[in-house]
Amino acid sequence: MAKNSKKKKIPEPTIERLPLYSRPLEELLEADVPVVSSETLAKLCGVNPAQVRKDLAYFGEFGVRGVGYEVSSLLKEIKSILGTDRKWRLCLVGLGNLGSALFENQNFKRRGYIFVAVFDSDPAKIGRILENGIVVEHPKKIEEVVQKLDIEIGVITTPPLEAQRIAEVLFSAGVRAVLNFAPIQIRKPECCVVENVDFTVSLENLAYHLAKLH
Amino acid sequence: MAKNSKKKKIPEPTIERLPLYSRPLEELLEADVPVVSSETLAKLCGVNPAQVRKDLAYFGEFGVRGVGYEVSSLLKEIKSILGTDRKWRLCLVGLGNLGSALFENQNFKRRGYIFVAVFDSDPAKIGRILENGIVVEHPKKIEEVVQKLDIEIGVITTPPLEAQRIAEVLFSAGVRAVLNFAPIQIRKPECCVVENVDFTVSLENLAYHLAKLH
Repeated sequence: MAKNSKKKKIPEPTIERLPLYSRPLEELLEADVPVVSSETLAKLCGVNPAQVRKDLAYFGEFGVRGVGYEVSSLLKEIKSILGTDRKWRLCLVGLGNLGSALFENQNFKRRGYIFVAVFDSDPAKIGRILENGIVVEHPKKIEEVVQKLDIEIGVITTPPLEAQRIAEVLFSAGVRAVLNFAPIQIRKPECCVVENVDFTVSLENLAYHLAKLH
Repeated sequence: MAKNSKKKKIPEPTIERLPLYSRPLEELLEADVPVVSSETLAKLCGVNPAQVRKDLAYFGEFGVRGVGYEVSSLLKEIKSILGTDRKWRLCLVGLGNLGSALFENQNFKRRGYIFVAVFDSDPAKIGRILENGIVVEHPKKIEEVVQKLDIEIGVITTPPLEAQRIAEVLFSAGVRAVLNFAPIQIRKPECCVVENVDFTVSLENLAYHLAKLH
């Protein structure tokens, strides 16, 4: 319980920056670099060093004054906070172009996000055998499969008109987290979490910065 | 120039939240709602009302005390700040599953992000005619096409090992903004901007929130 209460004190913006830190730390670990300064880590992540020191101060003492952070301990702690020190069981609903790209994404697997089931309502796709022997099933099988395979996260890449209904089926089957790529706001029960991915937000950020350059 | 100096004062986190506000505002405008309270807007965006008031205070006087914000003026100002009141000319490099999904994304078009060229090095794809008569070209044509069509934003969905080289070709052809989906950090000249999209970051946020629920 001590760990839980510690977790709660970390502010949301810090949590959102942690994945940024974990990537360069993994590369440093692979390159056998034992210690990294806040300046170097900041440069690798594209944030300022004061921000790095402030963020990392929230969770324990990995800083060695004047030297830097111990790479492996820091990475371990970040992974534990982010829940990336374990595996998560995912299902995909919607095997169009985007769904296929996500299913084949090597980074998901590498970081412990494993697709164990795929659903699509297209009769031409149902029964198709994918990587790892996963067979595409009709969405009417969601409840049965989610419970059998103990699926924790649902990834929705259906057309927008179907996304809410699919989310509800997932929630009622016991999935408590949904990553939604359909361009709608998913309504969800209190006990569940939804993360929406909207590529136009990234384009808008880019266009804003580009307009400032001119 | 007055407008530019005004722009510079808006803090980065506020800018990053502006696209969140513009979506519900567009829906309200379509539904002919003239005024929206900070409470309603906050609920529609999933942020708290104090944050909405603080963010919107940065750019002009659209708040009517005790009533709310004028939907159409507020949306117009946000679009002008984000550069979404104009059209942007994009090219796509990499017509795999993800590239195809982005090319077909209806929200891009709706928000003024128009693909005018597509490149892929696969001989089976070169020459293929896509929507709007766009013909898939070999990446060696990038410089010529970017200059001819005055392309401003490059979207990279190539394998990671090719992404840096492609970015450099785009930059030297005159593209100053890159949206990168390849899982690498793109090195860029000072005069250019790069936005990286990494789906695992969204999954990690989701997993963190899910772990907190348990």
